Amino acid sequence: MKLFRLEFICVGSELLTGKINTHTAYLGQRLASLGLSISREHAVGDNPRLMRETFSEVLSRSNVVICAGGLGPTFDDITRDVWAAVLNRKLVHQPWLLEDIKKKFRSRGVVMPPMNRRQTFVLEGARVIPNNCGTAPGQILKFRNKWLILLPGPSRELVPMVENNVLPHLQNECAANPLRQKSLLIFGVPESTVDQMIRPWVARRKDFMGCRVTHGILASQAIITVKFSVSGKSSIQVEKTADRLEKEARKILGRLVFGTGQETLEGIVGELLRKKNKTLAVAESCTGGLISKLLTDVAGSSDYFAEGVVTYTNQSKMKRLGVKTSTLARVGAVSPEVAKEMVLGLRKSSGATYGLSVTGVAGPSGGSLQKPVGLVFIGVSGPRGTKIEKHQFRGDRASIRHRAALTALNSLRETLLP
Amino acid sequence: MKLFRLEFICVGSELLTGKINTHTAYLGQRLASLGLSISREHAVGDNPRLMRETFSEVLSRSNVVICAGGLGPTFDDITRDVWAAVLNRKLVHQPWLLEDIKKKFRSRGVVMPPMNRRQTFVLEGARVIPNNCGTAPGQILKFRNKWLILLPGPSRELVPMVENNVLPHLQNECAANPLRQKSLLIFGVPESTVDQMIRPWVARRKDFMGCRVTHGILASQAIITVKFSVSGKSSIQVEKTADRLEKEARKILGRLVFGTGQETLEGIVGELLRKKNKTLAVAESCTGGLISKLLTDVAGSSDYFAEGVVTYTNQSKMKRLGVKTSTLARVGAVSPEVAKEMVLGLRKSSGATYGLSVTGVAGPSGGSLQKPVGLVFIGVSGPRGTKIEKHQFRGDRASIRHRAALTALNSLRETLLP
Repeated sequence: MKLFRLEFICVGSELLTGKINTHTAYLGQRLASLGLSISREHAVGDNPRLMRETFSEVLSRSNVVICAGGLGPTFDDITRDVWAAVLNRKLVHQPWLLEDIKKKFRSRGVVMPPMNRRQTFVLEGARVIPNNCGTAPGQILKFRNKWLILLPGPSRELVPMVENNVLPHLQNECAANPLRQKSLLIFGVPESTVDQMIRPWVARRKDFMGCRVTHGILASQAIITVKFSVSGKSSIQVEKTADRLEKEARKILGRLVFGTGQETLEGIVGELLRKKNKTLAVAESCTGGLISKLLTDVAGSSDYFAEGVVTYTNQSKMKRLGVKTSTLARVGAVSPEVAKEMVLGLRKSSGATYGLSVTGVAGPSGGSLQKPVGLVFIGVSGPRGTKIEKHQFRGDRASIRHRAALTALNSLRETLLP
Repeated sequence: MKLFRLEFICVGSELLTGKINTHTAYLGQRLASLGLSISREHAVGDNPRLMRETFSEVLSRSNVVICAGGLGPTFDDITRDVWAAVLNRKLVHQPWLLEDIKKKFRSRGVVMPPMNRRQTFVLEGARVIPNNCGTAPGQILKFRNKWLILLPGPSRELVPMVENNVLPHLQNECAANPLRQKSLLIFGVPESTVDQMIRPWVARRKDFMGCRVTHGILASQAIITVKFSVSGKSSIQVEKTADRLEKEARKILGRLVFGTGQETLEGIVGELLRKKNKTLAVAESCTGGLISKLLTDVAGSSDYFAEGVVTYTNQSKMKRLGVKTSTLARVGAVSPEVAKEMVLGLRKSSGATYGLSVTGVAGPSGGSLQKPVGLVFIGVSGPRGTKIEKHQFRGDRASIRHRAALTALNSLRETLLP
């Protein structure tokens, strides 16, 4: 069998001058669920010469080319035109697309600007992928036994097209060996600890129950992911093996595992609260609303999230939470005493079953010898009592805030576990 | 003059299976400060065949190749070996590097694992870039009038090498024409509107005051960026031209421009409050703490940010902000009346000079015919009065919350402008 090859091209000068590309990580992860992978990825600016060079080169050696970006209405969006030249195909105007785009503008009470007419041109023979979140249509074209897929650049337009159109299409057209990936998510210990814990097990499980297994450990934003991919001859066999491996890994890692796949700490905490039919309130100082934001990122969080207060000033801590002036004067806002008064005052004033409080020094300024940047106190309080934790985080302001928020959520998770 | 060409290769299977690549954005931004840019970027997994193909292809057409990743000690770190094969150069063991790496391990109280010996091999003729944050040395090699630069994959090792070694080296070796990039940030109108506003001006300014000018428009997360790059013979001329262009663009776009470069709405709002020596409090419902989070992302925000409340339940709206039971019963939480009572109650209870309130339906559930998902009311209140805005946002929960938060910040910005 000839090697299957999928390459991914991202078009946009912004990707080479400061914008972080998240498409490749997303697409790679989603393709893996079909047993497919990206052989090579490319980023190229809105430059016709370099785009043409890239497109020709990639097309010549790939079975599938996915190309994202440059489908907008403005003068520098030329992906359509360059592909037309490379493929030597015409761009054909689609009157129904014009109607569709006009309708989208009308529904926002705006007349379609003339330049959006450019988005109604489609490569001859291509199938249009509808765009429910924007005006740029996607395109799927069969060209000499190869597939070319054009997608718009913005994530909120690209992601639904990948989920609803591209993945199903590739599953039909490029079926691979059955493959199952699983990942276990861990918080609160360093990558090296997880590595040491699972290493002997990983070594014994390269070939297991007639399947091939590959493992990996990845640390990103303080969350450690243990991944394994299982490939074999039948889906049933692969599923069974993956389930067995997950059980084994969970036995080794125990309560360190907070979730799997795309789960989040805030989602897991929410599920635990929902199951218990309990409510939560959050009082934040140095995390400045981040914990409330994470918790309410979850759809349906109004079932258990009662309220949050971002008591950034001492006055706010006193007024909203009843923290004592004398305590603030004696030990300062960043102290176990204030974390405790915050969380107890919060439970009282909010009436929520559980309370979470955070006070600390996020930096870059405001640190001292006694209370350095990164010092954070976390209070967790519930029907079974109150605990106060002291943490010293490293890194810049964003990273200290992020770690403090996740650590608080994880402490709450531990409290909520049976 | 032959076109100068720099390409960037990122090696690592993780980049094609879920890890977000931040190197390209970082490097592109830093190179721009030298007037250099990345012509093309590539990501390739730890696969010798695909790495060799990529390396040969890129080397053949570039003046500078920067290659990051795959310099670690483990079996899948093969960047050194593949480059040795592509260049047909030996890898030479460096005894002093071995001593250096051994010392690093000793200082951590650990004996160097045998596998780290691999990191002491350097391409024949290459200069070593010292690594102060890890064990993998970088390498700079001159090869047939081209420069090849190898860097380790982890950011905390790559970034110092780029700052201390790579940028100074490129500045010496690849002096480019003076170049100045500027970007103006716009919020609150669609990309196409901005395009229409500036298009005639863009057309007249391709060559201007003896400089070459290129323009671009970019929409990302509801923020529109108008970028222009100016290149010319002298730095003074380029600076003058860029300043003049910025003035012209600002004249056309007026108050739509909220900032430049890496500025943010939350940072700009903070600056305006700081200048006026005023304070702000925020009451959020559907945005769930996101606005407070954004405002406190900014270091020093405690100078003006008084407090935030995330009044997610009706009870919380009543208790924390004094919203009337009768109003909630009559018109519901998502209404201009409640947005108004929230912001007025907030100013009263917080004592802050300015208040911001948001109430809406973030979805995906909770919408109705009268109050569809995406309906958001924003209240802005200050010494000169109170305004209530109605918005209808599109997209998923995350995107509705994001747009609502930025729209609220922008409304506050407009209120704070002279």
